[in-house]
Amino acid sequence: MAIPAGAPLSFFFARGEEHPYLSKLSKDELKTILGGKGYGVYRMICQLGLKCPAMFNLPTYHANNLAEGKLTPELRDEVCRNIALLEKATGKKFGSPENPLLVSARSGAKFSMPGMMDTILNIGLNDEIVEALVKAQPANARFWYDAYRRLLEMIGDVVYGIAEYDAGEETKDRFEEAMEQVKHAAGVTNDAELTADHLKTLCGKFKEIYKSQGQEFPSDPVEQVCLAAEAVFRSWNTPRAIFTRKEDGIPDDLGTAVNIQEMVFGNKTPLSGTGVFFTRDKSTGHKTPGKLDGTVLFQAQGEDVVAGRRNSEPLEVLLESENEHLRAIYNEIKETGDLLERAERNMQDTEFTIEENAEGVPILYWLQIRDGKRSALAESVIAVNLAKEGIITEAEAVLMVNPKRFEEQLYPRIPSSAKQSARLLGKGTAASPGPAAGAITFTKDQALEDSKTKDVVLCTVMTNQNDVPGMKAAVGILTSTGTKVSHAAIMATAWGVPAVVGASCVSFGEDSEGRFLEIDGTKLRRGDVITIDGASGEIFLGALPSEKPSDLSPEAEQIIEWAKKLKSLQIRANAERAEAQISADRGAEGIGLFRTEHMFLGERLGDIQTVLFGADEAAKVAALDRIAQFSKSDFKDALRIMNGYGVTIRLLDAPLHEFFPEDSHLEREENPMLGFRSVRMCYLNPEIARMQAWAILTAAAELQKEGLDPHPEIELPLVIIPEEVAYFKKLVAEVAVKVHEETGVWVHYGLGIMVETPAAALQGTEMVRALEAPVCGVPAEAQSAKGFASFGTNDLTQTTLAISRDDADRFLPRYVEDGMFALHPFLSLHPVVERIVRQFVAAARQVDPKFEIFICGEHGGDLYTIGRLHDMGFTGTSMSPGGIYRSILQAAHEQIKNPR
Amino acid sequence: MAIPAGAPLSFFFARGEEHPYLSKLSKDELKTILGGKGYGVYRMICQLGLKCPAMFNLPTYHANNLAEGKLTPELRDEVCRNIALLEKATGKKFGSPENPLLVSARSGAKFSMPGMMDTILNIGLNDEIVEALVKAQPANARFWYDAYRRLLEMIGDVVYGIAEYDAGEETKDRFEEAMEQVKHAAGVTNDAELTADHLKTLCGKFKEIYKSQGQEFPSDPVEQVCLAAEAVFRSWNTPRAIFTRKEDGIPDDLGTAVNIQEMVFGNKTPLSGTGVFFTRDKSTGHKTPGKLDGTVLFQAQGEDVVAGRRNSEPLEVLLESENEHLRAIYNEIKETGDLLERAERNMQDTEFTIEENAEGVPILYWLQIRDGKRSALAESVIAVNLAKEGIITEAEAVLMVNPKRFEEQLYPRIPSSAKQSARLLGKGTAASPGPAAGAITFTKDQALEDSKTKDVVLCTVMTNQNDVPGMKAAVGILTSTGTKVSHAAIMATAWGVPAVVGASCVSFGEDSEGRFLEIDGTKLRRGDVITIDGASGEIFLGALPSEKPSDLSPEAEQIIEWAKKLKSLQIRANAERAEAQISADRGAEGIGLFRTEHMFLGERLGDIQTVLFGADEAAKVAALDRIAQFSKSDFKDALRIMNGYGVTIRLLDAPLHEFFPEDSHLEREENPMLGFRSVRMCYLNPEIARMQAWAILTAAAELQKEGLDPHPEIELPLVIIPEEVAYFKKLVAEVAVKVHEETGVWVHYGLGIMVETPAAALQGTEMVRALEAPVCGVPAEAQSAKGFASFGTNDLTQTTLAISRDDADRFLPRYVEDGMFALHPFLSLHPVVERIVRQFVAAARQVDPKFEIFICGEHGGDLYTIGRLHDMGFTGTSMSPGGIYRSILQAAHEQIKNPR
Repeated sequence: MAIPAGAPLSFFFARGEEHPYLSKLSKDELKTILGGKGYGVYRMICQLGLKCPAMFNLPTYHANNLAEGKLTPELRDEVCRNIALLEKATGKKFGSPENPLLVSARSGAKFSMPGMMDTILNIGLNDEIVEALVKAQPANARFWYDAYRRLLEMIGDVVYGIAEYDAGEETKDRFEEAMEQVKHAAGVTNDAELTADHLKTLCGKFKEIYKSQGQEFPSDPVEQVCLAAEAVFRSWNTPRAIFTRKEDGIPDDLGTAVNIQEMVFGNKTPLSGTGVFFTRDKSTGHKTPGKLDGTVLFQAQGEDVVAGRRNSEPLEVLLESENEHLRAIYNEIKETGDLLERAERNMQDTEFTIEENAEGVPILYWLQIRDGKRSALAESVIAVNLAKEGIITEAEAVLMVNPKRFEEQLYPRIPSSAKQSARLLGKGTAASPGPAAGAITFTKDQALEDSKTKDVVLCTVMTNQNDVPGMKAAVGILTSTGTKVSHAAIMATAWGVPAVVGASCVSFGEDSEGRFLEIDGTKLRRGDVITIDGASGEIFLGALPSEKPSDLSPEAEQIIEWAKKLKSLQIRANAERAEAQISADRGAEGIGLFRTEHMFLGERLGDIQTVLFGADEAAKVAALDRIAQFSKSDFKDALRIMNGYGVTIRLLDAPLHEFFPEDSHLEREENPMLGFRSVRMCYLNPEIARMQAWAILTAAAELQKEGLDPHPEIELPLVIIPEEVAYFKKLVAEVAVKVHEETGVWVHYGLGIMVETPAAALQGTEMVRALEAPVCGVPAEAQSAKGFASFGTNDLTQTTLAISRDDADRFLPRYVEDGMFALHPFLSLHPVVERIVRQFVAAARQVDPKFEIFICGEHGGDLYTIGRLHDMGFTGTSMSPGGIYRSILQAAHEQIKNPR
Repeated sequence: MAIPAGAPLSFFFARGEEHPYLSKLSKDELKTILGGKGYGVYRMICQLGLKCPAMFNLPTYHANNLAEGKLTPELRDEVCRNIALLEKATGKKFGSPENPLLVSARSGAKFSMPGMMDTILNIGLNDEIVEALVKAQPANARFWYDAYRRLLEMIGDVVYGIAEYDAGEETKDRFEEAMEQVKHAAGVTNDAELTADHLKTLCGKFKEIYKSQGQEFPSDPVEQVCLAAEAVFRSWNTPRAIFTRKEDGIPDDLGTAVNIQEMVFGNKTPLSGTGVFFTRDKSTGHKTPGKLDGTVLFQAQGEDVVAGRRNSEPLEVLLESENEHLRAIYNEIKETGDLLERAERNMQDTEFTIEENAEGVPILYWLQIRDGKRSALAESVIAVNLAKEGIITEAEAVLMVNPKRFEEQLYPRIPSSAKQSARLLGKGTAASPGPAAGAITFTKDQALEDSKTKDVVLCTVMTNQNDVPGMKAAVGILTSTGTKVSHAAIMATAWGVPAVVGASCVSFGEDSEGRFLEIDGTKLRRGDVITIDGASGEIFLGALPSEKPSDLSPEAEQIIEWAKKLKSLQIRANAERAEAQISADRGAEGIGLFRTEHMFLGERLGDIQTVLFGADEAAKVAALDRIAQFSKSDFKDALRIMNGYGVTIRLLDAPLHEFFPEDSHLEREENPMLGFRSVRMCYLNPEIARMQAWAILTAAAELQKEGLDPHPEIELPLVIIPEEVAYFKKLVAEVAVKVHEETGVWVHYGLGIMVETPAAALQGTEMVRALEAPVCGVPAEAQSAKGFASFGTNDLTQTTLAISRDDADRFLPRYVEDGMFALHPFLSLHPVVERIVRQFVAAARQVDPKFEIFICGEHGGDLYTIGRLHDMGFTGTSMSPGGIYRSILQAAHEQIKNPR
């Protein structure tokens, strides 16, 4: 990012004073410039007037604009100017042995990249100052030497890169080695047991390391702070940071900010401490009455908490304290939490430090706030409660719930109780959600063999096309390499098989007992049982139970209700009779695709064979009649369940060979996908289409007689020319006349096409005209009441890209893995397919601005695709019942963000 | 057609006087308004001042604008006004017993529809006039009664429709029955033997027929002419005329004109006669020295010639006459022929009548001229000679040669000598050209059985999909029903099997000896041999020989030379090494599609199997090297033959299963057309593409070293995304560097894509950008010198329409037969495919106006498609060597008619 014209080189945050430049920016712009941490502190200091360590921010746009990795002279001057402001604000003096100002230099990018970039603490110390401090505060001698040795270590590591060295098999750390030597010499095993003298010795050894590596520790505090700032800026471009950004889709040009902040010490005295506080429970989303969600650790720094060296205590420990100030701090935390939530309009995840001041009073300092991460379950609860508390609007509440994660509430999951009592072996990338417990197998052949008798998890370095049969035989897949777009991840997602990939904690080997995998120090072999959690990336020893969640929480239901109110796209379900009720329960507004194939396969196969291949006319009529009665009953049930909503019923659409009699010598088609099926088959066998139309219209007629309001919509599959539309429009209208004669009812029905060929998509004008042209020779009441189009984007993708989905496994995963395709074209609408869809929509709406356009099939429930559909002005979308909730939610997001 | 604003209601043709309205119209406009006959007479009378019977024309636009089948009052007045003009021009008087004007009313549409519409002669006669004429000219008594009975018959038939009646099994004619009664009573068998009295009796009987049918013969000549005009106009809309127009693609709204012309009588006296004259020999195209191509028949009317009752004599009979006037008429015919050719700028087919005038002098009257029909062979001869004689330009000569018929010169054909000595059994519709001699079979099973031992012709009422195996087994197909778009015709054309359809002269039956077909009174049975001529529709008894024509005539070659000069589209050949030379000889400007598949199949199959499925790396390298050497040699030959011209070589493009080892258990793909092939296979096996690029570039390098100028163009098949282009562009550039290292030569090569998927077609912008973007990291000399695109419209049609050509036979013929498709989409570019092609062309040329765009494959040689390509601005087209001539010619037609 270039430095914006007119933007300051730095930002000093003065308590309670709005910054003239920043006050004009949006939250997003602020985060872009200041980074996430900088934004939070700016909010707290300048806008909320909270007590935070004083700070200034070197904004993100410097990260990619350094002069060969160094601060420009102007920026150095800026740092000095800000140091002076810090001195004024704190009353301390940088580089002064009497009352030294110490600072930290912390990274902070727009999007959180935990552990990716560097931090340097205790800047401002040197030999002279430490000696002076120890002399002035002898009781704190150990504290100051410890602070100093940390500074030495961090500058050596981060600024000069002299900490680590390559020792053949492993990487060693010179500073850690020196620490070990001192501990060894002192006869202690724990850092905490070292005395001030030991630590002083250690500081000397650390400075020798500098010398041995041809460097010198910079004693000048200003030099220290500039070097630290440069190092933090540079850390934006370390290989691991670049890799992480690529994984997470974070643009490289954003840059990190550097925050220079006054040090406060939670580890100074027993009344000092450090802690974290969530304004609501991140698992349940609720506020627990009489309890705050957070922990505190006395006499410790944040790093100690992270390292888990000691156990934190619940915040309620403050209330139990004899120190009245600490008891007051508990209430301060609580009240500040409410303030922060109202200010940030979201649940907050905060960090704080308590430092005992010179008067012996513990003072609460807020270090950082951010929107709190939360469980899928908690998302809805928090969003609904914030809305009900009047903090956010209903629309904002809906936006707060991630449609993709919303589904997680309905996945099978491993109960947290089971996880707590199980042994966590390690973690990889969550690649395909769901838990899978099974016996380890290492190869395709093992998986095929062992899966005959038990559930297996295929564990391997990576997968390729040859492994597919084994992958399909497994209940879960674990790979030690790869990312979310690797072969294993792509295939597993497509099949719905749980998978964890890129688990670098796993290594494979072979010994006298055969092949094994090693993880967390344990060797596991073929047949040993593990459990992977494809939603979290966790790997556990043994078989963990999984449970299917019962139903949505009341808050999740509330979110869906709000989303339904807010969205613009109609959400329908792909459902036959069996799925109609659950679809309606989940909120589907009709059926977008009722497939009729099953009425011909299974028990009715013999009948359709008679119709297609038989010679006896009477037998054909009888067979058709049996199918008709059977079909009518199914249609009637679905239309009754979806009373008042559209039910799109597709005429017969299956490849010819599925109907071949078993003993048939008929030749299988070369490319059945492009063969004799759908309207083509119905054109040459119009009695089939007539029978289906009769069953649909009669079902509706009977419901109309009951006083219901059925909306049958007859759909023609695989249409390529408007002449087909005209033919079937007439055929159906004639059937409507017949049904009227038989029932006395004129059925209101729609007639539409499935747009699944480029030919249909490219003839929007002609197709809509054909759908809307009245049929001659039949009364107006027999005409279809409306035309419509529904995209079958699976077939449309197949024909547009000339990729048979059934055969694509040989190359498509490689195309996705190599980035030839940005997204899997059978999961998310490919841009070139979108292009052709847009042509149809534009042409169709030109003819009739109210023409209804839908999509059905897998893309219809894809969140990315729903965004495209909303943008293109689709009337609605349709997907399997499992995708209804997330689609409703996504549709609401689209409408809120981009109203139409 | 509506009556054009400002257009006269009729046109009187005054000799030597240009008509003020007509003089402003083009030839095409004149024919539209006046019809073909009216146009010819207008030219002769008004413009050339030739001696024709006086005439006026009621133009075509009245035909569809009558008032309930009757002339409007204005038009009746117009007829009367014109009659007066005729009277003035002829000095005769309509309705006068003394010097009566007699006229004919003849139809004449823009396009000739022989025998389709009606004609009425001798209008102006009635009892009173005939009696007066007989009295004045007793010697002509028989002539006048005969003329009168003809008028009675024609008005009865055409105006009142009282001639025919349904007599159960057959249709009978009341007038013919009366004639038979009179002949029977007179004891004669031949019309000519009837005396004046007999004919007078006949006239009486004819008038009784009127009465018996509740009609009255109209004695008023004006009434006669109006009724006749109405009847002729109405004949435009008889069912058979409508059917013929549908067959021939003549628009229904054109209408016929009515020509009212003074009668002249070739049958009046022995010095009178009628004849036809062609200005050049219609078979050879030449003028025969000392001989005119035409015949004359004395004392006869045109009808007699058509009926073939007597044999005509060569025109030279005039020269041999003792009558000096007749000898002069011979020269008059000859000179007028030259005049007409220069005026009409084409070889003319004329009709004339000689009528002896009152002074005993035979006078030549020109009745009709039209551009003469001619044989395929004669077309070029006439065109070239007319051009060389300065009558037409070279461009007009080229336009005079029909590209479709041009090919006929190269088809096998039955020598006319053989036809003359054979028995012609009958004629049907010529449906698929070429001769076929074989034994009759009646069913699919018979055809399959008998074809094992001999050639068979499948003879049946009509064919359907079930007959396909039998149709394929036959050398020819004959059906008694159907048209050029029936199943039999469509399939036969597609396969190149000769076929005659709709031969209503053939009937099928069964008797004690089994099934037979009856034609021309002969019963033929299974095994009897016939010959069909699919180019003419003729059916002969026995096996006729066929001969393959040697080479083009010098005139045909001249036409091709001129066409090459005049066309704009580049014409290339689809050719491998074997076809390169013949393609070059026929005038191909390079190779548009060099398929490389055969290098991998056949004898090299084992090698490619090693590469694709083998495990031994060394064996793979060796196998690839063998293919490389083999390929290079082939490429080199083709590049040498096409020196200076582009040779487009397509990288490997075959369905995967064609490479499966015989003992392989690999699963065949579900839809191989959309499977793992083409660039997809090369992307996963880049060594194959590298090897092919190496062979192509090395072949060219070696030729460049010889001082030749090879233009290799590497083509990527089945491209769907620009990322594929980028990948292979880099790969090929790297190979170019390698070839340079090995040979010291930088090869100039092109790199292009085959556009055969909607995805590629819809991304013209992206594709051209990818093709033209330089590859980083290789020198400029290694880059491709140009990008290009070539449409593979076969696959593009398959994907756009979702029709697998291999599987289409189950329904596509029905779609074509029913008119769902106007043209067969795999023979002529379908409009929706054209739409997508246009999108690519527009986008590509927007990026680079000079970007080269080609087509290859079957559509490339289709004449209709060539017109579309020319119109779309294609650079060139490519087709099998057999289509080169016609394509050159068609391309010239397009450029002449629609220069770009």
